[in-house]
Amino acid sequence: MQLLDGRKLAEEIKKEIADEVSAFKATGGKTPHLAAILVGHDAASESYVAGKVKACAEVGIRSTLIRFEENIEENILIEKITEINENNDIDGLIVQLPLPGHISENRIIETIAVNKDVDGFHPVNIGRMVIGMPCYISATPAGILEILRRYNIRTEGKLCVVVGRSNIVGKPVSILLSQKGYPGNATVTLCHSKTINLKEIASKADILIAAMGQPGFIKADMVKEGAVVIDVGITRIKSDKTKSGWKLTGDVQFDEVAPKCSYITPVPGGVGLLTVVSLLKNTLLAAKKSIYN
Amino acid sequence: MQLLDGRKLAEEIKKEIADEVSAFKATGGKTPHLAAILVGHDAASESYVAGKVKACAEVGIRSTLIRFEENIEENILIEKITEINENNDIDGLIVQLPLPGHISENRIIETIAVNKDVDGFHPVNIGRMVIGMPCYISATPAGILEILRRYNIRTEGKLCVVVGRSNIVGKPVSILLSQKGYPGNATVTLCHSKTINLKEIASKADILIAAMGQPGFIKADMVKEGAVVIDVGITRIKSDKTKSGWKLTGDVQFDEVAPKCSYITPVPGGVGLLTVVSLLKNTLLAAKKSIYN
Repeated sequence: MQLLDGRKLAEEIKKEIADEVSAFKATGGKTPHLAAILVGHDAASESYVAGKVKACAEVGIRSTLIRFEENIEENILIEKITEINENNDIDGLIVQLPLPGHISENRIIETIAVNKDVDGFHPVNIGRMVIGMPCYISATPAGILEILRRYNIRTEGKLCVVVGRSNIVGKPVSILLSQKGYPGNATVTLCHSKTINLKEIASKADILIAAMGQPGFIKADMVKEGAVVIDVGITRIKSDKTKSGWKLTGDVQFDEVAPKCSYITPVPGGVGLLTVVSLLKNTLLAAKKSIYN
Repeated sequence: MQLLDGRKLAEEIKKEIADEVSAFKATGGKTPHLAAILVGHDAASESYVAGKVKACAEVGIRSTLIRFEENIEENILIEKITEINENNDIDGLIVQLPLPGHISENRIIETIAVNKDVDGFHPVNIGRMVIGMPCYISATPAGILEILRRYNIRTEGKLCVVVGRSNIVGKPVSILLSQKGYPGNATVTLCHSKTINLKEIASKADILIAAMGQPGFIKADMVKEGAVVIDVGITRIKSDKTKSGWKLTGDVQFDEVAPKCSYITPVPGGVGLLTVVSLLKNTLLAAKKSIYN
């Protein structure tokens, strides 16, 4: 069993991005600039956004954090997004999800300018991804592909089972892995809460991607000997063993599953770190106008 | 074995659409108006477009066919599309594919106004479909769903295998059938040219959707006893038994597969007819501004 070391990969890729940012600036390019909007004070969201801001600083990307209270009106948020859309100094804009219930996430996402949608959540970016056009691929699916690529894990013709059909992970990663090219050309089955015989289906997978957000759901008897297991779950659960009182837990029972795998991602230290790196990459692409003019 | 009778369904639904068009006009609505652009003289394209024009007339939808020669420049085509986008009398616009090699299909598709894209090929409509927002669903996937719905075929928890990963059939139908709701909630596997052991995978399917465009590819030993088989293939092959010299052939060896099925679509007389009906439905939605204002 080999650990897919998200921490090591993330450091490696961040160094590459930092070099690329420097080179871009050295040839007269602007400093890439990411704006992040955070509504409310959800602890998980606070920590994700803080991680993104920190990662930007590490690679020479400027970031601006814009905060609103939980009770902000949707229209005010939309005005702010429109203002940022028109601000030529800002290359990328993300709005941390989830948003409070009185705000339509879909409306917010569609308000973000396509060329600044570095989270890749806008329908144009999703639609372009589906038909194989250049686009911002959303950060978690892009991170999963990056792990497979960097570890040279073969995907062509492999049986890949994705568990979880969320808009931001399960659906896009299932589409990407079944597309032409590498990492892709896999035969992908998308499973979800209505799937019958999940154990039977999952245990045939050469590549198993767990993305349902249910801590410890995937057990050893659901995993084939020699499988590649990618654990996308990051659930904060209470713990009296950590200083913060919380710990991050994946969707996979790591201790019992790991011995059966050829490769497996840990949580923490796996996919999550690559997600942030993908966001940095997209922000650099935005500054360079590589995808949209 | 029960035949999924596309002809009967198409007639039934066309009658419903005709009634809806009449009712819309009776309450002051405009006559829905579809514009179709046809480039060149490909025999299959000619016949598809003629079928669409005829179907429009049958339900009281006005249609305008705009023809260009094979050697038309991309820019002229784009100018025409832009003109139609701005023409308030035209509700829906389709450009018959494939286009000649010197024209970028993606560029053409992205030029069509999202609210007139009744083929549902624009990235915004595909992206919205993926995340479950209101959109024009492209005609063939919508037609397949309509067949399942009208015959009350259960999809929840069923193993569904889609063979073929095209942008206009395989990918979207695999996404739609795995989504929440009905017809949906199926466990979908998307197979393609790089799939290994297709026979083994296909022969486990409760619902098998053949959409690779290879006449007679699906044989009896690839189909489970009692399966629902949807044949999307429509390939024109030469025949000395028809007046036209051509016959339409599906991806399924109908004669040997049909006896094993619970339900099966014939070719011709199956999915193809529903495809045209879905286009009429989208055109009516466009005239009513049901999805976009």
